[in-house]
Amino acid sequence: MPVPGDPPYFRRVAVIGIGLIGASFALAAKRAGRVGYVVGVARREETRRAARAIGAADETTPDPVPAVRGAELVYLATPVGALPGLLRTIAAALAPGCLVTDAGSVKAPVCQAAEALPASVRFVGGHPLAGSERSGPQAARADLFQKHVYFLVPTPRGGDEAAQQMARLVEALGARPVTISALEHDRLLAATSHLPHAVAVALMLAISQLVPDARQRAEFSATGLRDTTRIAASSPEVWRDIFLANARPLREACQLTIRLLQELVEAAEAGDGQRLKELLAQSQQVRQALETSPAARG
Amino acid sequence: MPVPGDPPYFRRVAVIGIGLIGASFALAAKRAGRVGYVVGVARREETRRAARAIGAADETTPDPVPAVRGAELVYLATPVGALPGLLRTIAAALAPGCLVTDAGSVKAPVCQAAEALPASVRFVGGHPLAGSERSGPQAARADLFQKHVYFLVPTPRGGDEAAQQMARLVEALGARPVTISALEHDRLLAATSHLPHAVAVALMLAISQLVPDARQRAEFSATGLRDTTRIAASSPEVWRDIFLANARPLREACQLTIRLLQELVEAAEAGDGQRLKELLAQSQQVRQALETSPAARG
Repeated sequence: MPVPGDPPYFRRVAVIGIGLIGASFALAAKRAGRVGYVVGVARREETRRAARAIGAADETTPDPVPAVRGAELVYLATPVGALPGLLRTIAAALAPGCLVTDAGSVKAPVCQAAEALPASVRFVGGHPLAGSERSGPQAARADLFQKHVYFLVPTPRGGDEAAQQMARLVEALGARPVTISALEHDRLLAATSHLPHAVAVALMLAISQLVPDARQRAEFSATGLRDTTRIAASSPEVWRDIFLANARPLREACQLTIRLLQELVEAAEAGDGQRLKELLAQSQQVRQALETSPAARG
Repeated sequence: MPVPGDPPYFRRVAVIGIGLIGASFALAAKRAGRVGYVVGVARREETRRAARAIGAADETTPDPVPAVRGAELVYLATPVGALPGLLRTIAAALAPGCLVTDAGSVKAPVCQAAEALPASVRFVGGHPLAGSERSGPQAARADLFQKHVYFLVPTPRGGDEAAQQMARLVEALGARPVTISALEHDRLLAATSHLPHAVAVALMLAISQLVPDARQRAEFSATGLRDTTRIAASSPEVWRDIFLANARPLREACQLTIRLLQELVEAAEAGDGQRLKELLAQSQQVRQALETSPAARG
């Protein structure tokens, strides 16, 4: 859905948490000519240096408060759990009219926290559906968001007008803006992202208990085990925050998965080959549709 | 573990179920000069034609009984559920001294059924830890087993001597023979193969219920979902048989996974970030070890 109107331009931008996502955003926005001067914020000196070295930031600081002073756009790309506190920290330093957005994987808590921002400030929740196994500005790429879905959540701070402006911006970066409510987003992502992650982690932990010898696990595992558990190697901090922030929808999605897994093993133990084959054929059909859908190649 | 002694040679071989695995075995054994004349058995005319076309079989038939007459080696590569019945069908036609082996993913039922074979016949359970998303003789490759683990299960029919002969044979095909008991094999594979499969299927079914719109599932799914559910697209018949044949160990592995998944979501709902991070860090470490272990590259 192309968004009408010219993409916006922001003279001064603060990117707080200038890791993989924050630095990729800065590189993409610079390449598209949508931003001028970028101040990058990161706690670690090594991250700040890398962000400057790759040209994602013109200046860096460990402190978010001076970084946001005078910024027309503030892009928050820290782990999800830090976002509400960060909004409180920077609230008083934000310039009137400033557009604040985030890139967190869970939208309800940050959008709720944004309601306490000054009335002069605009806030649009954001979530680019893009990433990489790697992390840090070293892994940043100007085309990271290219052709990927970019969720946008309008909030009372700025409403649809601010969301439209963000949509034109992310479209200028090559992404596909999708407007959605925070609750709808969090329920959707609980199913398509947080559930697979929780399941992969539980599966990896179970296998490590069932086959305690690491050498045996490696020697006797085939592609299936490797595929299903790949995401279990992701950052514990990032996913702790996501699970905590989206606990309720995640629990509901997990409970359904548990019921279906129980149904599978009960059919197997009962020798009910007919029911087993139905369930397996249904999952085969759903999985194949995932691969062949034109949207998937977007 | 290199196996001492010359690899055996079989003048006449019957491969029953000459699909991906059966035809790959025939191609590999022919290339290694370990077999002479190969009779391939398949129900479908198309499969038989393909097996002849790629040179996996010198002759084909839909009927296993005439195929095994005079064979020195009988290689059973049908789905797991057909194996016990197949042994009963061919028992009377097997030549004295004949070596019978199978390639099924579950070992207890077929090894038990083999105990009813004539005393003059030798049986070694087998399971090559190799495969492909594709199936049929069209997908067969002489190097399919190359460097892969090949489980061998000695049975009262032939004992260790027959198992040693099989070990020399599969080693001649480039595989790594691993001798194991049927029960140990089935418990191990329940954890490293059947459990990931059942979990992927339950996950795919859950997601299809949580996000009923196939277009949304495709559009809003990232790499994580695709990796974790890839094996859910496998053959329903093959996996129905495996789940039925290994129901008990599979149920135990699933129950442990369910407990761990519940522990994860309970920690999230209780806001216990410390416990969550412990579980996530542990799964990260186990998953990383899977990738870095030298055995995994074998």
